[in-house]
Amino acid sequence: MDSKTVGILGGGQLGRMIVEAAHRLNIKTIILDGENSPAKQINALDEHVNGSFTDPVAIAELAKKCDVLTVEIEHVDADALQALSDKTGIEIYPLPQTIKLIQDKYLQKEHFQEHGIATTESVAVTENTEENLIDVGVKFGYPYMLKSRTLAYDGRGNFVVKDESYIKEALEVLSNRPLYAEKWCPFTKELAVMVVRSIEGEVFSYPTVETIHTNNICHLVYAPARVTDTEAEKASILAKNAVKSFPGCGIFGVEMFLLANGELLINEIAPRPHNSGHYTIDACVTSQFEAHVRAVVGLPMPKNFTSLTTSNTNAIMYNVLGTQEPDGELEFCKRALETPHASVYLYGKTTRKDRKMGHINIVSSSMHDCQLRLNYILGESAEVPSTAEQKSGSELAGTSPKPLIGIIMGSDSDLPVMSVGANILKKFGVPFEVTIVSAHRTPHRMSKYAIEAPKRGLKCIIAGAGGAAHLPGMVAAMTPLPVIGVPVKGSVLDGVDSLHSIVQMPRGIPVATVAINNSTNAALLAVRILGAYEPKWMEEMNNYMSNMEQEVLTKAEKLETVGYEAY
Amino acid sequence: MDSKTVGILGGGQLGRMIVEAAHRLNIKTIILDGENSPAKQINALDEHVNGSFTDPVAIAELAKKCDVLTVEIEHVDADALQALSDKTGIEIYPLPQTIKLIQDKYLQKEHFQEHGIATTESVAVTENTEENLIDVGVKFGYPYMLKSRTLAYDGRGNFVVKDESYIKEALEVLSNRPLYAEKWCPFTKELAVMVVRSIEGEVFSYPTVETIHTNNICHLVYAPARVTDTEAEKASILAKNAVKSFPGCGIFGVEMFLLANGELLINEIAPRPHNSGHYTIDACVTSQFEAHVRAVVGLPMPKNFTSLTTSNTNAIMYNVLGTQEPDGELEFCKRALETPHASVYLYGKTTRKDRKMGHINIVSSSMHDCQLRLNYILGESAEVPSTAEQKSGSELAGTSPKPLIGIIMGSDSDLPVMSVGANILKKFGVPFEVTIVSAHRTPHRMSKYAIEAPKRGLKCIIAGAGGAAHLPGMVAAMTPLPVIGVPVKGSVLDGVDSLHSIVQMPRGIPVATVAINNSTNAALLAVRILGAYEPKWMEEMNNYMSNMEQEVLTKAEKLETVGYEAY
Repeated sequence: MDSKTVGILGGGQLGRMIVEAAHRLNIKTIILDGENSPAKQINALDEHVNGSFTDPVAIAELAKKCDVLTVEIEHVDADALQALSDKTGIEIYPLPQTIKLIQDKYLQKEHFQEHGIATTESVAVTENTEENLIDVGVKFGYPYMLKSRTLAYDGRGNFVVKDESYIKEALEVLSNRPLYAEKWCPFTKELAVMVVRSIEGEVFSYPTVETIHTNNICHLVYAPARVTDTEAEKASILAKNAVKSFPGCGIFGVEMFLLANGELLINEIAPRPHNSGHYTIDACVTSQFEAHVRAVVGLPMPKNFTSLTTSNTNAIMYNVLGTQEPDGELEFCKRALETPHASVYLYGKTTRKDRKMGHINIVSSSMHDCQLRLNYILGESAEVPSTAEQKSGSELAGTSPKPLIGIIMGSDSDLPVMSVGANILKKFGVPFEVTIVSAHRTPHRMSKYAIEAPKRGLKCIIAGAGGAAHLPGMVAAMTPLPVIGVPVKGSVLDGVDSLHSIVQMPRGIPVATVAINNSTNAALLAVRILGAYEPKWMEEMNNYMSNMEQEVLTKAEKLETVGYEAY
Repeated sequence: MDSKTVGILGGGQLGRMIVEAAHRLNIKTIILDGENSPAKQINALDEHVNGSFTDPVAIAELAKKCDVLTVEIEHVDADALQALSDKTGIEIYPLPQTIKLIQDKYLQKEHFQEHGIATTESVAVTENTEENLIDVGVKFGYPYMLKSRTLAYDGRGNFVVKDESYIKEALEVLSNRPLYAEKWCPFTKELAVMVVRSIEGEVFSYPTVETIHTNNICHLVYAPARVTDTEAEKASILAKNAVKSFPGCGIFGVEMFLLANGELLINEIAPRPHNSGHYTIDACVTSQFEAHVRAVVGLPMPKNFTSLTTSNTNAIMYNVLGTQEPDGELEFCKRALETPHASVYLYGKTTRKDRKMGHINIVSSSMHDCQLRLNYILGESAEVPSTAEQKSGSELAGTSPKPLIGIIMGSDSDLPVMSVGANILKKFGVPFEVTIVSAHRTPHRMSKYAIEAPKRGLKCIIAGAGGAAHLPGMVAAMTPLPVIGVPVKGSVLDGVDSLHSIVQMPRGIPVATVAINNSTNAALLAVRILGAYEPKWMEEMNNYMSNMEQEVLTKAEKLETVGYEAY
């Protein structure tokens, strides 16, 4: 596709997956790393360079054969790369200066602060003395994080200083490293975003994902993150701004903390494909690896090329780590192969405890369904969820914090009528919310509710009202969602007043009106609306209807058997 | 993952994609083909065999290094493979006997007929004489197909005998080949199904797809096929039955004709990964190549592991053929790279006119959206559909033969009222259908309509009725879909009779009732129901609502300007 030859410093799993993406585009790649490294296994060239990606001589040898160099790891000799670039003019992405800056985690933090990018508060430890660390404790309080500025990854080089008494141990553990300290960050979730930057400086973000670490190593990734749309969007903007602050091109993994107050802080950034982006191989049409290749050789990167494949794509990535027993991790892989919608990626590495041996991607129409499959793979459930995909087209109740149906009423006096419908939704397991919104007494609250409903993921609003009964029609006037109106019977006029107020809407603003006081039917109608698009709810409705039929048939049989008088 | 080494006869693009799938599972593959063939390029082993996959000596050399052999092409020396298997006991999948049978297209047809599997009617041509071909014309009529029994693919070895006068030419073109004749098959569509068979004989089918050939070469594949669910299911069953008729394991591509009467006939079968299955790389979690690898080494193949990734995954595969001008085909690839949701696969082959150089997969939430993207790639539209995915979550009107909304009424006298709603749907571009279904006069037609509606893809039914107005409630009683009732005003009682008949449904069966005679609101409600799940319709509804607001504001401005008397 492109006549540029790409040299890769590092032939581990990231390099291997870059090579795979390059192959698909007929782009030539040459790898610098040890013989038979994972990336070299899948690339039959005899021009590979055997050696270390930190060795300037080996790097120079690689550069001679290539038009552009890139890295799968930031722990390279950035100065050597800069000198090479200065001397030969070879393109190197990420830029050596970016690599150098990111290599030093404290410089990285300073860089973000200078660029107004929210990040955890940090302070340099100029000399590794107890005195200095006590000063940090005074500044930040305890606990705080003591971190190595360089060569730290997967939690190595980090120490939690719980109180002053830990300082001695901290200095022993991290004695011969350049250090900095970070204020303790009480996050509620860790989020990550892959961002790719074109040579023109345009940035494109993959979806915001949620990462779960165990023993400081990435354990699981949920894509998209199980957060509100606003939080996801804020994370995406923060990540893009962070990446925009570096010149040069290529892909970056941006790790963030989400705090309880909704604040987002950048933890750190990696100038290369990232473990949190492996889900993109199956959940996006263009993987993070292809995006990186496109960036460094200058191939097109159109708007939205980094989005999830379909509007209901959900994915979980599970990292396969080496177990105590050699090859013990293959047990998880085998279970993944037994699981439809799971995909195994092994890296051709020799097994070793806690080594990243491979990963498993699970992709399906709902996160709940992905989770069921993961449970089987982890041995936490005995049943292979082979048909879950068919059953569940959507998040199931209980697992989703997001209501699909909103039940509102003008007054709590309507609750006895409306709660019957709420119970129906509960019985069906549909996630819903119930609240009071009065058209006449809280008109602004009503507007807000109506306008925000679609963004919050509601699919349908059930509104109950009596008398002049304006609520359903007014909400319908301010939301594009279907609104179901329940006429509540008042003390006079038998509810016909409410019925006519709700049903006789002018052309242009429909309200789906049900019978007087019949919130049951409103709830059932809401389930049918969900069922039109989500097979699970249609199946539930079919079951409900056959049960109803069966009940009546049973009664009929009884009536026929015992006679109408005895009945 | 598995300690078996797999030898592959043939290192073209199919072999290459098998190797890619095997790499991901750490399964060792060794290739027999010419040096630097596409599959060898991505496999760094030095044990590959250089030579022809039809050469028994080379095959024996390959076999010595492997535990199991497979093929990427059926034009191999099946007898040599059988002898090898007999002599050494090496596993070979597909079985040599299956390869031998399938190699000879006439034996293949005979085999299907013996097994009761619907296929095109054929007759052997024992000797290539004009007399024999005239006899075929008498038997089958004209035109008929004259085909080479062996070594025929991509239309090579086929001749259309339009009438008796073509017989001479046919014999010249196919002179030195063993021939058979096929009855002309006036198909409406060509369908294909990838089926994988486990060593235990269980078969799993990928979705039924639609193939479009140009000059006898696969041009496009639509997945899933744009046919009814019943046709797709019938095709799947026929394909599975066909594959079940062969012992041994591995993947098979089954090509079928769909006739105007809905009949399906098998055209031919390939005992290997197939061009019609390339879409599986992006549209399914497990690709056809991985499925084949799993089959031949005996890795798990769970139920549903061949399904599309999500419930709204749609894909188009486009074959990239070499153009007259060398590398001219890269123009299409470049346009694909400019297209979000398109993925380019190049095979590492030297460019040559009509050679399969690569393919492009387009995957998105709707087929319409895939088609827009394809149009750009083919240069048929100038606009990169970068945001189409956001806009269109569903099939658009006009391109989809499938209605989303059904409008029904009890009598044609309701049409003046109901047609207003139909026009609204038309204006929105929602695919819909209009028909008469009377609860009282055509009760069985009503049942059928209500029951079949969800299967036909309807998302919502609008039912208009007057007087006793039973239609909406009765339809709602027999379908799980949301039903919207329009009370039609009769000559007495002002429509309140219809309103109460429709709205006062018993608990359990909801009808979304709108105002008397207000089919406009019924249509708008239907659009809102679609919009709850399909962003496109929500956007349209939002536009509609702002236009409505704007119109009233304009009128208000006019009224305020000219005064209420002049207005």
